[in-house]
Amino acid sequence: MTQSSLIADLIEALRCLPGVGPKSAQRMAYHLLERDRDGARRMAAALTAAADKVGHCTSCRTLTELEICPVCASPSRDRSLLCVVEMPTDVAAIEQSNVYKGLYFVLMGHLSPLDGIGPADIGLDLLSIRLGQGEIKEVILATNSTVEGEATAHYIAELARSHGVAVSRIARGVPMGGELEYIDGGTLSHAMAGRQTL
Amino acid sequence: MTQSSLIADLIEALRCLPGVGPKSAQRMAYHLLERDRDGARRMAAALTAAADKVGHCTSCRTLTELEICPVCASPSRDRSLLCVVEMPTDVAAIEQSNVYKGLYFVLMGHLSPLDGIGPADIGLDLLSIRLGQGEIKEVILATNSTVEGEATAHYIAELARSHGVAVSRIARGVPMGGELEYIDGGTLSHAMAGRQTL
Ligand SMILES: [Zn+2]
Ligand SMILES: [Zn+2]
Repeated sequence: MTQSSLIADLIEALRCLPGVGPKSAQRMAYHLLERDRDGARRMAAALTAAADKVGHCTSCRTLTELEICPVCASPSRDRSLLCVVEMPTDVAAIEQSNVYKGLYFVLMGHLSPLDGIGPADIGLDLLSIRLGQGEIKEVILATNSTVEGEATAHYIAELARSHGVAVSRIARGVPMGGELEYIDGGTLSHAMAGRQTL
Repeated sequence: MTQSSLIADLIEALRCLPGVGPKSAQRMAYHLLERDRDGARRMAAALTAAADKVGHCTSCRTLTELEICPVCASPSRDRSLLCVVEMPTDVAAIEQSNVYKGLYFVLMGHLSPLDGIGPADIGLDLLSIRLGQGEIKEVILATNSTVEGEATAHYIAELARSHGVAVSRIARGVPMGGELEYIDGGTLSHAMAGRQTL
């Protein structure tokens, strides 16, 4: 044991971060302790505040500390369009492409019967209520183009049709098996503009 | 503004970590919030404890929350050998190579007259006192083989000689311009075993 325990604890804790192995966790810990203790304290405060206070938007289910997230609350969004995505990072990716001005619905996952994840687990009961209220005229399906994402899109298309709401799927421009989060804004623009009625 | 402010704050705070850009900070923040809030809280606690309590070993200057670090306090180390390194990460690298059983002295930097970093700023006053106490028989210089590391080694070699203490420099096996932290254990073993008396 060369490292004293608080430093070892910090290195271990930093490994919770995705893509951070033992070597980079060590580098991060020493960097913060040698050069940026204010940064370390700021990060601790931000982690605590976010972990304790961030919940889900009651309207679209995305992560937010607010009752209604900034997008759902915005008076300038087109409330007749609802884009359905899997994760909050997908909302961020589409927003960065700057071509869409409607609302979102965030599943926080996808249907996965083998893992016991059914319609209610991804908020489709809430989505069904919203579709029944008549304000939404078109549902744009922007789930990932993976097997699970396609199956989920298919299920939601049926749900929308049962409420008499038009449904479209963003165009393939997105490569097969690709995850929305990692796709550039230009490709996303084309995919959004070239969406097909289902 | 798509992200609510606590999430934006967290993404911003994560960018204090070395090698973390806006895209990976976002991925880390959502990962913690979606899947590992306990990890986020544990990380916050570890950051706060380390930032508030970690100081320097009064004997070797390495980072530790203890008065005397585990290596300096160990009864099984050879107290006649003192290996001088620039940073705590260098101690960790040498310990992993498992060939050295003496003590360390950690400069927490190197001489850099242009930046106003002189002998007292890297603890050479403290080192001089230890060399004067007679317990240390050999100083092994393991500063980086950069221009500053070599100049610092040269300065410390003179200091050790003035106290009648033998001095050696770890062998070049370390590539020129290389930083100790990134060198594999095998190369470090050779460098340590092949050290030359100065
Ligand atoms: Zn919302
Ligand atoms: Zn020590």
